[in-house]
Amino acid sequence: KTKFNITVIPGDGIGPEVTKQAQKALEAVGDVYGYTFLYKEALMGACAIDETGNPLPDETLELCKESDAILFGAIGDPKYDNDPSAKVRPEQGLLKLRKELGLFCNIRPVKAYDTLIKNSPLKEEIISGTDTVIYRELTGGIYFGIKELSDDGKQAFDGCSYSVEEIERMAHLAFKAARSRKKKVTLVDKANVLETSRLWRKTVTELAKEYPDVELDFLFVDNAAMQLILNPKQFDVILTGNLFGDIISDEASVIGGSIGLLASASVGSENALFEPIHGSFPQAKGKDIANPLASVLSAAMLLDHLGLQDGARAIEAAVQKSLELGITTEDINSERSFSTSKVGDFISDYI
Amino acid sequence: KTKFNITVIPGDGIGPEVTKQAQKALEAVGDVYGYTFLYKEALMGACAIDETGNPLPDETLELCKESDAILFGAIGDPKYDNDPSAKVRPEQGLLKLRKELGLFCNIRPVKAYDTLIKNSPLKEEIISGTDTVIYRELTGGIYFGIKELSDDGKQAFDGCSYSVEEIERMAHLAFKAARSRKKKVTLVDKANVLETSRLWRKTVTELAKEYPDVELDFLFVDNAAMQLILNPKQFDVILTGNLFGDIISDEASVIGGSIGLLASASVGSENALFEPIHGSFPQAKGKDIANPLASVLSAAMLLDHLGLQDGARAIEAAVQKSLELGITTEDINSERSFSTSKVGDFISDYI
Ligand SMILES: CC(C)[C@H](C(=O)O)[C@@H](O)C(=O)O
Ligand SMILES: CC(C)[C@H](C(=O)O)[C@@H](O)C(=O)O
Repeated sequence: KTKFNITVIPGDGIGPEVTKQAQKALEAVGDVYGYTFLYKEALMGACAIDETGNPLPDETLELCKESDAILFGAIGDPKYDNDPSAKVRPEQGLLKLRKELGLFCNIRPVKAYDTLIKNSPLKEEIISGTDTVIYRELTGGIYFGIKELSDDGKQAFDGCSYSVEEIERMAHLAFKAARSRKKKVTLVDKANVLETSRLWRKTVTELAKEYPDVELDFLFVDNAAMQLILNPKQFDVILTGNLFGDIISDEASVIGGSIGLLASASVGSENALFEPIHGSFPQAKGKDIANPLASVLSAAMLLDHLGLQDGARAIEAAVQKSLELGITTEDINSERSFSTSKVGDFISDYI
Repeated sequence: KTKFNITVIPGDGIGPEVTKQAQKALEAVGDVYGYTFLYKEALMGACAIDETGNPLPDETLELCKESDAILFGAIGDPKYDNDPSAKVRPEQGLLKLRKELGLFCNIRPVKAYDTLIKNSPLKEEIISGTDTVIYRELTGGIYFGIKELSDDGKQAFDGCSYSVEEIERMAHLAFKAARSRKKKVTLVDKANVLETSRLWRKTVTELAKEYPDVELDFLFVDNAAMQLILNPKQFDVILTGNLFGDIISDEASVIGGSIGLLASASVGSENALFEPIHGSFPQAKGKDIANPLASVLSAAMLLDHLGLQDGARAIEAAVQKSLELGITTEDINSERSFSTSKVGDFISDYI
């Protein structure tokens, strides 16, 4: 197969600008390696609310279901964040998409790039050599439990639930990943307080017996938040639930020296979506200053997913080169910086 | 008043060793400034389970209720952590004590000590000058919601709820604290996903109008976990719920260069408890190597609470001096280190 249908969801804020650079990289890969990517654009998030009233229009969902992969930009707009009474919010679009497509596993590699180590708030000896990947459950937990606000508005409730089945399918992916890496899985939970965490601990402990070559250990989430900064090198695969994964994967982004370089994959049994982990960064919207590399690297993860490893490696090499030569946006080097589109041009030319 | 009843709960692991040093510091303060502290020791945690089968014996609870303040060590034992089916766990003792005494507000100062900056995994320019305090809600949220495990053991549930009242009493304390500090409160929540967080945001936004001299801003918890490391100086008072507070306050402990120096207060309308934020560190139990300074500084917070500011400042000065002279345990300086009790001796002698 050399022809692929890609749904592109630029989203909000800087989403469209960075996604465009990722598409340019895909085009270059297509030219060099003989693949054809057919793109269909779709709306999601604040822009979708503005145009259709719905953060995830049916059309978008249908397009995603039919495509081989989804390339997504970013979501969110401050005009909704501070209005707790807004009934429709951009994030609902992304959450619904994850749920409807069954994208239950979010994978976030965390690596310290040599050229960026100086940009990290952490000391070089702490982070150099870090190579971790976070496996975050994405369609369960408190994100998708019942939500209630009492009639008088004085009491709010969120329910969190997990089933053995949800935990097992995640754990299998994490253990399999560990097998081709450093053979260690760390489960992050709060089993000293939460019933759901105790079910995670029990289920994962059982299932670990099927992977005797992989070491399993446990960390309470509060301790994990500390250990990630004190000694990130101790981790190989981190396995965790939806909410804890949200927090610690964003926290872990500081290790690499730039959140502008971190990509992620959200996979299910039928579909897969690729996105930078940074947000919509509305202050930079339309200014051609946003760092496109995380989106470009998401495209590389997308290629890996489609089995096009040659293309994925070509993109990664181009990103590496842009870092070495300093062809980067102002967040990486404010003294000598290039625009979003110039960085994108360099990447696609280099490929 | 110069006579005070203190309930001392040494707890598990290194709890007894460090609490003893804190008591020595209190004794020295008593001698110098003419106060009398009457101590009663009580059981809680794994040691209480071992002796009585109950992580919080009634006797302990009664003693705490009658005392002017509670000095607590640490809780937890690994033999319970990896046994998800244990019906009785040490942590239940602490959680129940917080709930029964209504200790709804946990206060954790985060400061970068000049002498310790080199020990931090963060770069000096990032942390120097950090002076933040975290106000964590302590008797609500998912910690105290309903917990369920289905009969077949295949589905677990945790409920999280918050009421306007619970949020308001916390917010008042945080805004009042901000008034005597840098006049800024940052609410950390996940209002783009959780109903309870939206209630926090709405309630705090309303209440902020009573404090027009204090600036209020908001951060999603994932972003907060990142910002705490990228730029901790941006924060003054951080206000947040129970679970998020647990995670980010442990994360914030890396800023100071040593978790062995961080104290906390848990206050309610009738009672107050003081404890180091570090855990029971069972590997070090009985070895006379644990850092007692966090416990000693908890005693200083206790004195402040009792209105004995002179004693509190004397303890702080002694701790400062021990850092300057390098009279510290091996976690701070492994090349030249002193035992737990020697550090405690220095503190009380200096006072
Ligand atoms: C936008 C938001 C709902 C989302 C989440 O919390 O999952 C984001 O933070 C992420 O991590 O992808
Ligand atoms: C021991 C545990 C239950 C406790 C908590 O999570 O509150 C501890 O981590 C803390 O922060 O005091």
